Amino acid sequence: MAVAVYAGTFDPVTFGHLDIIQRSIQVFDRLIVTTTNNSSKDEMFSLDERIALLKAVLDGNGRVAVMPFTGLLVDFVRTEQAKVIVRGLRAASDFDYEFEMAMMNRALAPEIETVFFVTSPQFMFVSSSLIREIAHAGGDLSSFVPSAVRNAIIRRLEGNETGV
Amino acid sequence: MAVAVYAGTFDPVTFGHLDIIQRSIQVFDRLIVTTTNNSSKDEMFSLDERIALLKAVLDGNGRVAVMPFTGLLVDFVRTEQAKVIVRGLRAASDFDYEFEMAMMNRALAPEIETVFFVTSPQFMFVSSSLIREIAHAGGDLSSFVPSAVRNAIIRRLEGNETGV
Amino acid sequence: MAVAVYAGTFDPVTFGHLDIIQRSIQVFDRLIVTTTNNSSKDEMFSLDERIALLKAVLDGNGRVAVMPFTGLLVDFVRTEQAKVIVRGLRAASDFDYEFEMAMMNRALAPEIETVFFVTSPQFMFVSSSLIREIAHAGGDLSSFVPSAVRNAIIRRLEGNETGV
Amino acid sequence: MAVAVYAGTFDPVTFGHLDIIQRSIQVFDRLIVTTTNNSSKDEMFSLDERIALLKAVLDGNGRVAVMPFTGLLVDFVRTEQAKVIVRGLRAASDFDYEFEMAMMNRALAPEIETVFFVTSPQFMFVSSSLIREIAHAGGDLSSFVPSAVRNAIIRRLEGNETGV
Amino acid sequence: MAVAVYAGTFDPVTFGHLDIIQRSIQVFDRLIVTTTNNSSKDEMFSLDERIALLKAVLDGNGRVAVMPFTGLLVDFVRTEQAKVIVRGLRAASDFDYEFEMAMMNRALAPEIETVFFVTSPQFMFVSSSLIREIAHAGGDLSSFVPSAVRNAIIRRLEGNETGV
Amino acid sequence: MAVAVYAGTFDPVTFGHLDIIQRSIQVFDRLIVTTTNNSSKDEMFSLDERIALLKAVLDGNGRVAVMPFTGLLVDFVRTEQAKVIVRGLRAASDFDYEFEMAMMNRALAPEIETVFFVTSPQFMFVSSSLIREIAHAGGDLSSFVPSAVRNAIIRRLEGNETGV
Repeated sequence: MAVAVYAGTFDPVTFGHLDIIQRSIQVFDRLIVTTTNNSSKDEMFSLDERIALLKAVLDGNGRVAVMPFTGLLVDFVRTEQAKVIVRGLRAASDFDYEFEMAMMNRALAPEIETVFFVTSPQFMFVSSSLIREIAHAGGDLSSFVPSAVRNAIIRRLEGNETGV
Repeated sequence: MAVAVYAGTFDPVTFGHLDIIQRSIQVFDRLIVTTTNNSSKDEMFSLDERIALLKAVLDGNGRVAVMPFTGLLVDFVRTEQAKVIVRGLRAASDFDYEFEMAMMNRALAPEIETVFFVTSPQFMFVSSSLIREIAHAGGDLSSFVPSAVRNAIIRRLEGNETGV
Repeated sequence: MAVAVYAGTFDPVTFGHLDIIQRSIQVFDRLIVTTTNNSSKDEMFSLDERIALLKAVLDGNGRVAVMPFTGLLVDFVRTEQAKVIVRGLRAASDFDYEFEMAMMNRALAPEIETVFFVTSPQFMFVSSSLIREIAHAGGDLSSFVPSAVRNAIIRRLEGNETGV
Repeated sequence: MAVAVYAGTFDPVTFGHLDIIQRSIQVFDRLIVTTTNNSSKDEMFSLDERIALLKAVLDGNGRVAVMPFTGLLVDFVRTEQAKVIVRGLRAASDFDYEFEMAMMNRALAPEIETVFFVTSPQFMFVSSSLIREIAHAGGDLSSFVPSAVRNAIIRRLEGNETGV
Repeated sequence: MAVAVYAGTFDPVTFGHLDIIQRSIQVFDRLIVTTTNNSSKDEMFSLDERIALLKAVLDGNGRVAVMPFTGLLVDFVRTEQAKVIVRGLRAASDFDYEFEMAMMNRALAPEIETVFFVTSPQFMFVSSSLIREIAHAGGDLSSFVPSAVRNAIIRRLEGNETGV
Repeated sequence: MAVAVYAGTFDPVTFGHLDIIQRSIQVFDRLIVTTTNNSSKDEMFSLDERIALLKAVLDGNGRVAVMPFTGLLVDFVRTEQAKVIVRGLRAASDFDYEFEMAMMNRALAPEIETVFFVTSPQFMFVSSSLIREIAHAGGDLSSFVPSAVRNAIIRRLEGNETGV
């Protein structure tokens, strides 16, 4: 059974991420969606909140599991007995960084392969960082994120609590 | 009358920005140059200072207005009854981010169009962030920014006040 | 009145080109769509056929004119008393060639400005050369080109005549 | 059983292609390597010769099949009951063309997914077109292609026959 | 004494090439400018003509030699007891092809190094292929090529002979 | 005697940097490796520590000197009577920023030339920022940095002191 791991920051998870997840699950038998602590200063949601939102929007698909990881991603992939890391490519400018990461992970764990899926055109421009900017400026996010995420963002910006 | 809006950080405004402004005003009847609060930590000038410097260097051109905006850029564009957002492209590596922004704005306001102008070759390498680095290292900025900006930078670095 | 010229090979004209034309006509008062002799060996339609197909699909929009040009594009733009060249950008890899052309045209005619529009995401991947390949392989083109173009391609591939 | 199709021109097949094949076979149960008629004028090997060379270098791996296709790749993929198209990415400049092809194929056959593998660093610079150039200039190809390919190139350049 | 080789197609030599040559000669003691037979179909000048034009425009600089090569560039570099190949970079889109060539040459001759210079901004957009297009369309080339080249192009287009 | 300056952040120095240094010293008579204060918040080693590590790994090569600089790099280059700035290029996405820096430095000091070397394929994916991430996640760095650097990182992460 081919198990793949899709790791990202998911701050927040968008329709673009969900598109990659749907594509991956056509190709692999089981997909583990994972994320880790985010050292960036402009974090919108904590690790626990990001995991909770992923679970909320992916609930009900028995072949997709959501769980956090700590340490090296390749160690997590090995522990879960997966052999593939899934990444989404949205634009040519993603490529060089993605190539660096894939090669670093190959150097650390040669038996694990990284495969790339391309996002559907209608989600190519949807980035989590732009979504955070639009959220802070008060824009409508309903075309970019699921309603559970949109509601969590509204609660976060209103009351400084997510209530996820 | 075709009104366009040219939004940027302008920290500080450079000869490259002025080049885009001159090109835009050949094509559109009226241009509104605008900027907003900058969340970045390495800000050199505040919003008020950036607006004051833009006014100082653009003074006397009756078809160019300078004013700040808050919230979403597309809401500002609508309020000003403009229909075009102007952006400058300096390099291929700008493209993917600019595409994301243009598509996000199109999703938020389909009736507003983003158009791109390319900077003249002699200003292609002039970026505000490199200018801030050169300023901190004590380099001569006279080839890159107007004298009003250069003087404001010198005052800022000397006495921690701009006196714009 | 702001007149713009949109030049391309249009071999064949696609939904992506029509998207740029619709965007341009929101911004400019009048748009001239033009094309010229194509030195490429793998031409599908002749200059006359490409002009006829453009006229067929753009018929009825009083603010869009279709006509061929010979010689330098900037000379045609001057003769038509336009001041703007319109180009579509689909991807980062287009940028460097488009920049070269825009700068060459600026060197030849400094008073003419090139402005870029970005194609809608759903048409970003539609290129005339891939359409020619798919046509030769017998694929269905209805998602990529207007029916008049599709019919002309089918006639061309069947009987070596377009009947445009 | 997950079947994938790896299509390319393979004129000639290089160590870079073999690297992608080895990676793909770790992830998928069965891989079909395929190629088609090449309209390019600077072809080195015919379709039959390219298929023969692929078979020669891939012989003995029971999970890899080699066969030609005609018409649309997606129709071949469907006929072979595969669900995945494999592509290799060597550089950022590959991305925009690969994205176009993947999106075109998705429009033609939404149930088929394209996945990308990245070539190992030591083969990133190995392109079939540079190999043809080096061959014509008399350079040693042993670091870039398998010996069966190298011998076929030498025979081709010496006697205008491949003897594959 | 550090000897470098600058190889290109030079069809025709432009102000951009001359800029790279001037920069190289500041860094190296001696520069050999070289070119070879061009398999491309849209050649404007033959090998002999390109060498003659290079000699005409580089005449009088005792540290720059012009000569043709055949076979592999690295063999020519070795024969001339040079240790460096010079290349000009004009844009990000040049990089991936240049990287391929540099790595191929390194694989063929590890003792020879490729170094890159960047063209001055005012010549970044000057490409030989665009110059050939503009020449055929009757445009003025005086901003892009030396007068000897411009005159040779005019003679070539008028009477099908260069008279170089 | 041709003296070149290789400036970088070197936080930490990697096998990729050492590869560029080895290539540069084949081409230039003497190489000065230099670095300066790093304004970035996620610094791993201080200026003094980075200089000490560079000296530790470059010790014994009489033609390579290590020293810090303050202020503008071009002023340092002039003071050291060098005429060349060396930069390493790893990927197309590096190009636009490197071009900006080279052009800025050319505007500030026209007599100083920037030349670019390309990293060997096996080190193309080794970036200091990814190394800092892998170090924090507990990964093995022995394929990416010299043992002196690896030991300093381990000491830094264990006891918050480098003991360089």
